[in-house]
Amino acid sequence: MQAVRIAGGGLTPFGQFPNRTSRDLFAEAAESALNDAGVKCEDVDHLCFGNFVGDVAERQGHQGPLMAEMAGVSAPATRYESACAAGGMAVRGAVQKIRLGEADVVIVGGAEQLNTLDTGGATEALAMAADELYESRVGVTFPGAYALMARAYFAEHGGTREDLAAISVKNHENAVHNEYAQFRNKITIDDVLDAPTVADPLGLYDSCPVSDGAATAVLVSESYAREHDLEAPVTITGSGQGGDTLALQGRSTLTHTPATKQAAEAAYANAGITADAVQVAEVHDCFTIAEVLAIESLGFFEYGNGIAAAAEGHTTRDGSVSVNLSGGLKAKGHPVGATGVAQIVELTRLFRGDHPNSSAIADATVGVAHNAGGTVASAVVHVLEVER
Amino acid sequence: MQAVRIAGGGLTPFGQFPNRTSRDLFAEAAESALNDAGVKCEDVDHLCFGNFVGDVAERQGHQGPLMAEMAGVSAPATRYESACAAGGMAVRGAVQKIRLGEADVVIVGGAEQLNTLDTGGATEALAMAADELYESRVGVTFPGAYALMARAYFAEHGGTREDLAAISVKNHENAVHNEYAQFRNKITIDDVLDAPTVADPLGLYDSCPVSDGAATAVLVSESYAREHDLEAPVTITGSGQGGDTLALQGRSTLTHTPATKQAAEAAYANAGITADAVQVAEVHDCFTIAEVLAIESLGFFEYGNGIAAAAEGHTTRDGSVSVNLSGGLKAKGHPVGATGVAQIVELTRLFRGDHPNSSAIADATVGVAHNAGGTVASAVVHVLEVER
Repeated sequence: MQAVRIAGGGLTPFGQFPNRTSRDLFAEAAESALNDAGVKCEDVDHLCFGNFVGDVAERQGHQGPLMAEMAGVSAPATRYESACAAGGMAVRGAVQKIRLGEADVVIVGGAEQLNTLDTGGATEALAMAADELYESRVGVTFPGAYALMARAYFAEHGGTREDLAAISVKNHENAVHNEYAQFRNKITIDDVLDAPTVADPLGLYDSCPVSDGAATAVLVSESYAREHDLEAPVTITGSGQGGDTLALQGRSTLTHTPATKQAAEAAYANAGITADAVQVAEVHDCFTIAEVLAIESLGFFEYGNGIAAAAEGHTTRDGSVSVNLSGGLKAKGHPVGATGVAQIVELTRLFRGDHPNSSAIADATVGVAHNAGGTVASAVVHVLEVER
Repeated sequence: MQAVRIAGGGLTPFGQFPNRTSRDLFAEAAESALNDAGVKCEDVDHLCFGNFVGDVAERQGHQGPLMAEMAGVSAPATRYESACAAGGMAVRGAVQKIRLGEADVVIVGGAEQLNTLDTGGATEALAMAADELYESRVGVTFPGAYALMARAYFAEHGGTREDLAAISVKNHENAVHNEYAQFRNKITIDDVLDAPTVADPLGLYDSCPVSDGAATAVLVSESYAREHDLEAPVTITGSGQGGDTLALQGRSTLTHTPATKQAAEAAYANAGITADAVQVAEVHDCFTIAEVLAIESLGFFEYGNGIAAAAEGHTTRDGSVSVNLSGGLKAKGHPVGATGVAQIVELTRLFRGDHPNSSAIADATVGVAHNAGGTVASAVVHVLEVER
């Protein structure tokens, strides 16, 4: 089985770009990734693309071949849609194609254009990630669903809005120097607590923004990297996926995310590591509570201890595991289909030393990317390792 | 690498079911496939699902985990969207997971609900398969795009509306005894020629209907089939994918479909066969001209000879290669995301002897499924072989 190396990555800034299309954003990220990789367009064997709401927001489905054109490549292309985990799922598809020997070079990317919609339209579009019959139709929105999870967590394990706020403060701080981040301002605990309520107990600063943007990585087989003398020190050593019921009502608990646990266990086994080995992680913090659930289900902290661990600083740049050094979905932004790919690109930059926060993990060799869809009905985890 | 066997298949009738949801249709097909396979729900490792317009027609994205629930399985799930090739793409994903050893049992399915939309709404939804900026926005619909291809074909290679009509007549005849087909009536050449024009030179009977329905297959690894003593005589021996520009304007020809050629060559090489070996095929006849383009690009006939070959009966049940014994998209129906999976299920039934048209291919051992998206910007080809 071929090892999968990351030859290069490209990002657009994340933000509000209502006058750009997702194809235009993707073209920018893809060009940047191909340049970074030093791989020629004609060597690309496949393109894997993640997008969530393009059908509704841009009346554009069938984005695989479109995005291949935008990347300037003539290769078969596949679109993955798994709500907010679309990007991670595309990465998984790319890894599988290389491991199988079906491809030596795969462009994996994601893009999303949400800000052509107004707030109501975006909320409605994002609600397609929930169960239309049993959730969206009766008024459950994503802030509402995660607020239910936060309340259940508080009731079962304790924790406060202040504890959650620490996560948002950390992620904003991490984003300050990230040139691709949507929000590069520091905030305080009080800013979070005083912000307007979105769905109690979650306020505006507990919630990721509505973002546009694109992310692209060029993945290559070990043998291609060697033949072409590519500098590609980062390897994807583990890939795992988990699933759960789409609607919250079908689950036995709201305070755990078994899909993340399943994806993590599969990815760790695949990489031959345990959770203890992970020193840096990009996790799916669509809401502050989601980061708590993620760091527990990923095995970094015991169930019920994640919120205190976060509040006590164990996930900061100096903590036992540095979480969301990019700024996370909260501060870096969340152009849905791009997010899972951006996590891989950010980890690659962090490992290679060309990220503004690289110094925080100068000796780290094992990182994890965690991408989730809906209320974690889908989860994808990848393990990345770097040669130092 | 694990060989991939088809342990069972399930279909709903294809037709107009505006009062059913795609989840409901899928549950029926999945139950039927699991029963046919004799595989327990708890053994299922993954679900691959194809759907095109659910986001628009049912406001439901993120269908992977939803459909896993509907199938009664607790397994990670992935949705594939590649317009009308979504189902074939899901089959490819399932094949890759088993070949890689990531899964021993994969449910692959597709479902579509289109008839909740009116004709205008369905046309608009299906137009998401074309390029929104350069085609759909300026009024190109799918009948219009394929009419352009038919006109170009006539101009370059000759052929007439009568020649195309023979394809529709054949497919209707094949569907007469198929209990799952949407149209089970014989038609004549005159019926086709006298039908209302949809987009000149294509008339109503040159065009597949707007269908609802679902299809599911249970794919298993060779070793799982052996361990569980499953009767699974049909093997997927080849899988290939091709791509082209999304918009017709980007192509150097309208009379060939290079994406199909690319997919076929990859699938044949993968299976270790040549086109000559193929005795039976389910091809993507969304319009009569599409069947002509398919049988040429699949290598059954030389470029420019397909239309005459079809008119002369070489693709009938008694022809050199029997094409669309199910009735094809034209007469069996085309519930978009289900189509690529249904092709696999129909070939399996044909090979196993439990299809009403099995007698037509009693000695055949090699079949092909060809699924296309948009104006063949995406194509997927699978080779199926049976032990006799």
